[in-house]
Amino acid sequence: MRHLLSAGDLSRDEAVLVLDTAKELAQVGDRSVKKLPTLRGRTVVNLFYEDSTRTRISFEAAAKRMSADVLNFSAKGSSVSKGESLKDTALTLQAMGADGVVIRHGSSGAARRLANWVEGAVLNAGDGTHEHPTQALLDAYTMRERMGRLEGLRVAVVGDVLHSRVARSNVLLLHTLGAEVTLVAPPTLLPVSVGTWPCAVSYDLDEVLPKSDVVMMLRVQAERMNDAFFPTAREYSRRYGLDRDRFARMPDDAIVMHPGPMIRGMEISAEVADSPRSTITEQVANGVSVRMAVLYLLLGGSESAIGNQEG
Amino acid sequence: MRHLLSAGDLSRDEAVLVLDTAKELAQVGDRSVKKLPTLRGRTVVNLFYEDSTRTRISFEAAAKRMSADVLNFSAKGSSVSKGESLKDTALTLQAMGADGVVIRHGSSGAARRLANWVEGAVLNAGDGTHEHPTQALLDAYTMRERMGRLEGLRVAVVGDVLHSRVARSNVLLLHTLGAEVTLVAPPTLLPVSVGTWPCAVSYDLDEVLPKSDVVMMLRVQAERMNDAFFPTAREYSRRYGLDRDRFARMPDDAIVMHPGPMIRGMEISAEVADSPRSTITEQVANGVSVRMAVLYLLLGGSESAIGNQEG
Amino acid sequence: MRHLLSAGDLSRDEAVLVLDTAKELAQVGDRSVKKLPTLRGRTVVNLFYEDSTRTRISFEAAAKRMSADVLNFSAKGSSVSKGESLKDTALTLQAMGADGVVIRHGSSGAARRLANWVEGAVLNAGDGTHEHPTQALLDAYTMRERMGRLEGLRVAVVGDVLHSRVARSNVLLLHTLGAEVTLVAPPTLLPVSVGTWPCAVSYDLDEVLPKSDVVMMLRVQAERMNDAFFPTAREYSRRYGLDRDRFARMPDDAIVMHPGPMIRGMEISAEVADSPRSTITEQVANGVSVRMAVLYLLLGGSESAIGNQEG
Repeated sequence: MRHLLSAGDLSRDEAVLVLDTAKELAQVGDRSVKKLPTLRGRTVVNLFYEDSTRTRISFEAAAKRMSADVLNFSAKGSSVSKGESLKDTALTLQAMGADGVVIRHGSSGAARRLANWVEGAVLNAGDGTHEHPTQALLDAYTMRERMGRLEGLRVAVVGDVLHSRVARSNVLLLHTLGAEVTLVAPPTLLPVSVGTWPCAVSYDLDEVLPKSDVVMMLRVQAERMNDAFFPTAREYSRRYGLDRDRFARMPDDAIVMHPGPMIRGMEISAEVADSPRSTITEQVANGVSVRMAVLYLLLGGSESAIGNQEG
Repeated sequence: MRHLLSAGDLSRDEAVLVLDTAKELAQVGDRSVKKLPTLRGRTVVNLFYEDSTRTRISFEAAAKRMSADVLNFSAKGSSVSKGESLKDTALTLQAMGADGVVIRHGSSGAARRLANWVEGAVLNAGDGTHEHPTQALLDAYTMRERMGRLEGLRVAVVGDVLHSRVARSNVLLLHTLGAEVTLVAPPTLLPVSVGTWPCAVSYDLDEVLPKSDVVMMLRVQAERMNDAFFPTAREYSRRYGLDRDRFARMPDDAIVMHPGPMIRGMEISAEVADSPRSTITEQVANGVSVRMAVLYLLLGGSESAIGNQEG
Repeated sequence: MRHLLSAGDLSRDEAVLVLDTAKELAQVGDRSVKKLPTLRGRTVVNLFYEDSTRTRISFEAAAKRMSADVLNFSAKGSSVSKGESLKDTALTLQAMGADGVVIRHGSSGAARRLANWVEGAVLNAGDGTHEHPTQALLDAYTMRERMGRLEGLRVAVVGDVLHSRVARSNVLLLHTLGAEVTLVAPPTLLPVSVGTWPCAVSYDLDEVLPKSDVVMMLRVQAERMNDAFFPTAREYSRRYGLDRDRFARMPDDAIVMHPGPMIRGMEISAEVADSPRSTITEQVANGVSVRMAVLYLLLGGSESAIGNQEG
């Protein structure tokens, strides 16, 4: 594993290695040891062509907890807007000694293109509507922690699948790890290619809920809801929002997930979001552990993940 | 002391402890030792909903001088603008392992609300027109250094009290520490509640000056001066600006303070600002020491503030 | 050497010391040692009044590789826009304990003015159309590495000299180091003062190319090309662009340089930019080494540059 570009690139063993490494690293914060020297002297660049403060600081926290140096490169107002190509930006970061580049970009495939040009590791932090593999890894980690297994787990992914890199990465990774995914969305919010994805599809949330161990609500991007093709925000909320009544139809031990940021009252009610069966803040915490694991595995070389500790 | 939300929350002993700790920490920079390991492994998040580069880098410098990791979270362009509530942002930072959150927010009371939702320490770096407690602490520190005492010290706070969180925090803290504060402002720039504040009020700067040990000029926010309610910039400057003539009416050992950024020629003349009796740049330097002290006391746990040193 | 304000301030010995120190520091990245403790406890402020992500992260990478703390102060949205003068910003950074201030500013001379007000070192990272001395140092470093010498080297600097701080700094430094510079530009893109510069001038690129050991293409600022005074982008590219045919007219061992960001197809063809005789990415890498050297020499005090190492 040299880069992390797509959740679909990971073999079962590689995915399990990331989750197991994250588990080991998650214990660091629980002990008196809060900082590891593992990546000291390594430089991680956050190359963000789109704003995403949450994802950026999650990677930044992960890198710093392992003593890496972090450089934040926001493409806004940079030479990118002076006409520099992604390739030349890549060669620049490469020349500056970036050991890892975390890229968020509006174009699907940008992360993979970047990987052609740099020697360091490329970590895809979201490229267009394509993929967001660390999100899928933290989701899988969260499910495994909560439910004790991934094999055979029934996962419903609900909402705007069409525009969701989270959905795609989850389908690919969960399939690799043996879970059974059902996408639940109105027809206009499903990609045409969905028939080729390794998952089931339904338009009827109420029918799927009682048969789900995990219900993952996708983020509603309200700005898209004005388009005539798509349901109105109100219609969407009524048919696909997870409110108290729908929550009651889920199995007693089923959990609710959301990648955040959420709009309470739209895709999820406040009551459900704050339920002990909601894993929303655990997902955020697990995100740091999973990103530590990925950075360690891609940049760490031969050193033990948590072998040498400092206080 | 778990958070620092209001200068009014501090007991006399707590306030003195902050000042004494700051004094001890200020010596670090003076010696060959410039960096302390005290907060190594702790994470401080600067959560800024308003731009304030000065305050942000003062906290950042303080945290880094004690080896904490700092994450800058500017709310502009973040998920906040995608509809995420302060509560959910708080839960996110909490989940990412923030040991301390430094918050600057446009709404009075935002810092206290945040403190309901996070386990880490909350440090109010300015909330609306409400409070800015570390500014009051650095001002008190500066007065104590310069005048040798706070008890009985006569302090005039001059200017736009109505919109000033600095004025309110100073009144509360200085009262606790035994100083006597007089607010000096035109009636329209005083809050209606000022009668309940533990201080005197005057509309006449020239009368107050000769009886003041400390004259603290507030920042003029020129954009407010266009409002018909308020004096024009020119009127304001004539009646409440500290120029050479007024400066001459102050006692010989009285000092002039300003929280910055100042507009020379408006609320203070260049000559007065650059006088050796002006403490403006000392206030900035003391700001770093005071913020180190607050971070240490809130996040530092059982370790000695400057016990373990590294070069 | 207390500051680095102009390439013209450097004596020959000082310039060679920077290059030699950079050479020594460049080896750090090549070994297992990737981080030096040399500047631990020192604080470097990046004070950027203009966006320049490349230059900012180059300085930031250099400072962090030597364990300095870095504070990024972007003047946009800061108190600068609230009316604070450069002097007061300087005094503020000074008071916060900045050991070095890296300044990028739109006004020629801003770096030198700043140096009047701070005790720490000032490093000019580009001031108006005036100077960009670390760019000239990294260019000289790159030439020396590639060509083995600077004395007597024939260097053509091609393009918009009028608006280029890079051109001016290069002319001054290369003259000091014994190289022979020829500026090549259309008459309207040369400053009126060029007659007093220690270099030759030509309007004819094709004539200069065969006699050049180094051809440095300047960045085209396309937004200027709309002005009636200047050639159109197309004209410019035809007369001063470095394409394959022109590249063939250069001596076989001559190299092509560009400070970046470049616009492929405008001032330089993609084929030339990617040639092994192009040094563009080496320049970026050398930029970090040269900035490490300058920071070390200005801030490092008595310690050995790479004496005490940590893993």
